[in-house]
Amino acid sequence: MNDIDPTGAVADWWATGISRMEPGVIELRGRPVQDLIGTTGLTPMIWLMLRGDLPTARQAALLEAALVAAVDHGPQAPSIAIARMAATCGVGLNNAVASAVNTLGDAHGGAGEQCVRLLDAVLQREATGLDLRTAAERTIADWPRYLPGFGHRFHPRDPRRDPLLALVEDAVRDGVVPGRHLRAGKSLEALLAEGRDKPVPMNIDGATAIIYAELGFPAPLARGLFVLSRSIGILAHAWEETQSGQRNKGPIPRTVLPTHRP
Amino acid sequence: MNDIDPTGAVADWWATGISRMEPGVIELRGRPVQDLIGTTGLTPMIWLMLRGDLPTARQAALLEAALVAAVDHGPQAPSIAIARMAATCGVGLNNAVASAVNTLGDAHGGAGEQCVRLLDAVLQREATGLDLRTAAERTIADWPRYLPGFGHRFHPRDPRRDPLLALVEDAVRDGVVPGRHLRAGKSLEALLAEGRDKPVPMNIDGATAIIYAELGFPAPLARGLFVLSRSIGILAHAWEETQSGQRNKGPIPRTVLPTHRP
Amino acid sequence: MNDIDPTGAVADWWATGISRMEPGVIELRGRPVQDLIGTTGLTPMIWLMLRGDLPTARQAALLEAALVAAVDHGPQAPSIAIARMAATCGVGLNNAVASAVNTLGDAHGGAGEQCVRLLDAVLQREATGLDLRTAAERTIADWPRYLPGFGHRFHPRDPRRDPLLALVEDAVRDGVVPGRHLRAGKSLEALLAEGRDKPVPMNIDGATAIIYAELGFPAPLARGLFVLSRSIGILAHAWEETQSGQRNKGPIPRTVLPTHRP
Amino acid sequence: MNDIDPTGAVADWWATGISRMEPGVIELRGRPVQDLIGTTGLTPMIWLMLRGDLPTARQAALLEAALVAAVDHGPQAPSIAIARMAATCGVGLNNAVASAVNTLGDAHGGAGEQCVRLLDAVLQREATGLDLRTAAERTIADWPRYLPGFGHRFHPRDPRRDPLLALVEDAVRDGVVPGRHLRAGKSLEALLAEGRDKPVPMNIDGATAIIYAELGFPAPLARGLFVLSRSIGILAHAWEETQSGQRNKGPIPRTVLPTHRP
Repeated sequence: MNDIDPTGAVADWWATGISRMEPGVIELRGRPVQDLIGTTGLTPMIWLMLRGDLPTARQAALLEAALVAAVDHGPQAPSIAIARMAATCGVGLNNAVASAVNTLGDAHGGAGEQCVRLLDAVLQREATGLDLRTAAERTIADWPRYLPGFGHRFHPRDPRRDPLLALVEDAVRDGVVPGRHLRAGKSLEALLAEGRDKPVPMNIDGATAIIYAELGFPAPLARGLFVLSRSIGILAHAWEETQSGQRNKGPIPRTVLPTHRP
Repeated sequence: MNDIDPTGAVADWWATGISRMEPGVIELRGRPVQDLIGTTGLTPMIWLMLRGDLPTARQAALLEAALVAAVDHGPQAPSIAIARMAATCGVGLNNAVASAVNTLGDAHGGAGEQCVRLLDAVLQREATGLDLRTAAERTIADWPRYLPGFGHRFHPRDPRRDPLLALVEDAVRDGVVPGRHLRAGKSLEALLAEGRDKPVPMNIDGATAIIYAELGFPAPLARGLFVLSRSIGILAHAWEETQSGQRNKGPIPRTVLPTHRP
Repeated sequence: MNDIDPTGAVADWWATGISRMEPGVIELRGRPVQDLIGTTGLTPMIWLMLRGDLPTARQAALLEAALVAAVDHGPQAPSIAIARMAATCGVGLNNAVASAVNTLGDAHGGAGEQCVRLLDAVLQREATGLDLRTAAERTIADWPRYLPGFGHRFHPRDPRRDPLLALVEDAVRDGVVPGRHLRAGKSLEALLAEGRDKPVPMNIDGATAIIYAELGFPAPLARGLFVLSRSIGILAHAWEETQSGQRNKGPIPRTVLPTHRP
Repeated sequence: MNDIDPTGAVADWWATGISRMEPGVIELRGRPVQDLIGTTGLTPMIWLMLRGDLPTARQAALLEAALVAAVDHGPQAPSIAIARMAATCGVGLNNAVASAVNTLGDAHGGAGEQCVRLLDAVLQREATGLDLRTAAERTIADWPRYLPGFGHRFHPRDPRRDPLLALVEDAVRDGVVPGRHLRAGKSLEALLAEGRDKPVPMNIDGATAIIYAELGFPAPLARGLFVLSRSIGILAHAWEETQSGQRNKGPIPRTVLPTHRP
């Protein structure tokens, strides 16, 4: 409150629990920034900023594995291609990253958020007294379209699934996380494999959704955390393309003209 | 000013000459919105919002021609490809348009802004007493890199040049615009054609820069107006792609894997 | 097809009905660009790009009125504030416009798209044999949350409603549009006024949704067209702020510090 | 190469050294992703993706300190305010982050990139045989406007300066980094303090620029790394605002109307 804000309503309009600023003072979640610099890792910092407390070392390690796993999936991912093209258009790296991150929507990485909701739905049914298998069956039957977090257009078996699930299993064993979402996810995966020539194994969105949910992150943050993770690959590709010196890179070699199909 | 803003400093922080809002009242550049609806065309509205007054019919027609000319250049333009890919990622049309518009930077349409500066530079030299040809020669000699607004990677002669310049010439003849930037642009073009097997004719950025500058828009608005124009093509392509139902469209057919070049 | 694309699959990946490009050739919806420049207005161009044909003069006038009506709602609209702040951060006008357009989501102008769906839902119920009033009542009863296109937080009565609806009524009377969505919208509005001290009149999203739907645009393009319209106000505000010379404009005067509320 | 890309030109158009994808295979900088998950921290992963090799533990720690220091500066920073407003507009967290990251331009964090160039300029002058003080003086004299990385509008002394510089000094002492950019930065800071009532101490952009440059990152990546860092605060604020349930948050309390200043 000061003379131009005597009621405090203007300051309150921007009230936040995340940061406190005064001249010479920066506190993040109640901690002076100078106490965080040099003592706190980047992944614990992400946790602190999103949740207000610091993770244990094991919680941080599990979160970090999920973040590392999803950094990149090459230029065939629309976000990566967009970052590379944008970087050739005479805009800053911040702009190239923004155009790309912007596309991490429901169909491009947003599946993690939906998968957390799917796992929650299974657990909620189970909590009504059903056995897990039946809960999973009914959830699948009611799910509107394809199941988020399972199957991959490109990988018959996503190479990130096994190491991520192994880490979750270790964490469950050691009491780091409860293991409920892991059970739900594996139950769904088992059902999707039954009686099929071609199983539909869990993909990166599914495996990271389990980790985020086990660690207590709400569904929308599965998308939010993916954004932080993929930003790394997006930046790396934008930078590589910047160094090529190309201008106005289109999606295909210049001599190929898009088909006109009236 | 009210009890939470007794000094008016908060209201003043967002002071604007463009719009005035009160409950039940919307005024744009001093005109009640209900007086504009049904009486004012879209192009005059653009002029009004950017400049504060309404154009004459001839000014509006010239501006409109420039806006129409630049709406689209097909999916080989990064902005258009980005709009189409973004539209398949499970985000809204507003997001797809944003990711694309964001890339209309210095190397992708931003040349219009630079070309206005180039034309201004020629005219400033001429104003020192040089003849136009010499002013243009010296400006070319001093320009740091390639000349914005001239030459096109794809079109030997940009099909939008002639009709746009014809409209400017008509407007000069009828006293609608002064014709100074047109003279500067044609002088540069003539110099770039001299003694070359392959001339470097004016492109869309050059022709629209002349129109915007003749109408009195400052250089940064050459980029701004291009943004409004190209947004139309961007939206059309995003919408066409949306209707395809494709998800996560990459830049090249799925079976082609990007080369790994360590 | 050429030697690097012998099957045509690469050209086909980017097939489009909107544009055809060859060196020296630009065709938009089958029309050479040079035939459009100087003959076609900006609003007819929007229609052409989105739909493939040109509107009649009366159709274009109705569309234009809707586009003009929504260009701006002042700096209290998040999109406008964002454009102004972005413009002070050392990015281009294209970037400032993109950050702003990006926020025209479900809760900020996206209501137009939802309102078209609402109107369609009323008409579909009516088509089952119900009278319009009953169809509207049941649609309201089933609608999940508040009704999109009705009521305004700020305006007791949106000043854009009456002139827009008057134009639709004229167009219905003259056979320009069928009038079905107008009837549905007015029926909803009447129901929302019954037995209330404070009616909930149609707002800009409702009035423009009626226009877009009457003209045959599908629901997602109600959002798309709003994006084109609001881009004009966004650009005007970004440009005004640019001229202020301010750097890193925050949301409130600098001396007011956001409240810390742990 | 396959039948639709017999020359390999299409695959080559998207060639990259960052990632290699095949069905069942994801390699990042030549390392199978499954070998990185659970073994590699997030900060080393950023280094790997941007540079192709892994940092030593001390290099990673120094980079991590810089990344942690810049995550947030509260809602008075335009990027943070934009993230919060965007999050209330009915778009995804990815979109809110994108609108915000997009504004980290030349005037908002981009100073880090400019500061690396400034430090390089000092060192290049010194390399011509000048003493450091003279090199710094001449660089200041020639710099077009205010010096990037020094002074802060809000903090008389940026609380992040001391802990960051202390870490660099430790790293120099232990041979982790050469210390040249640190010397240049401190030389500039000393000159800016001389004979002034009010010194202009190094700010966060300056201190992190020294770290990035000491670690061998080129100037544009100072901006890129800041984008990754600030994305964390941006996400945290977008998420906090999402939880408020507010819709269409404007920049100031609703009852305050922006001043109209024609």
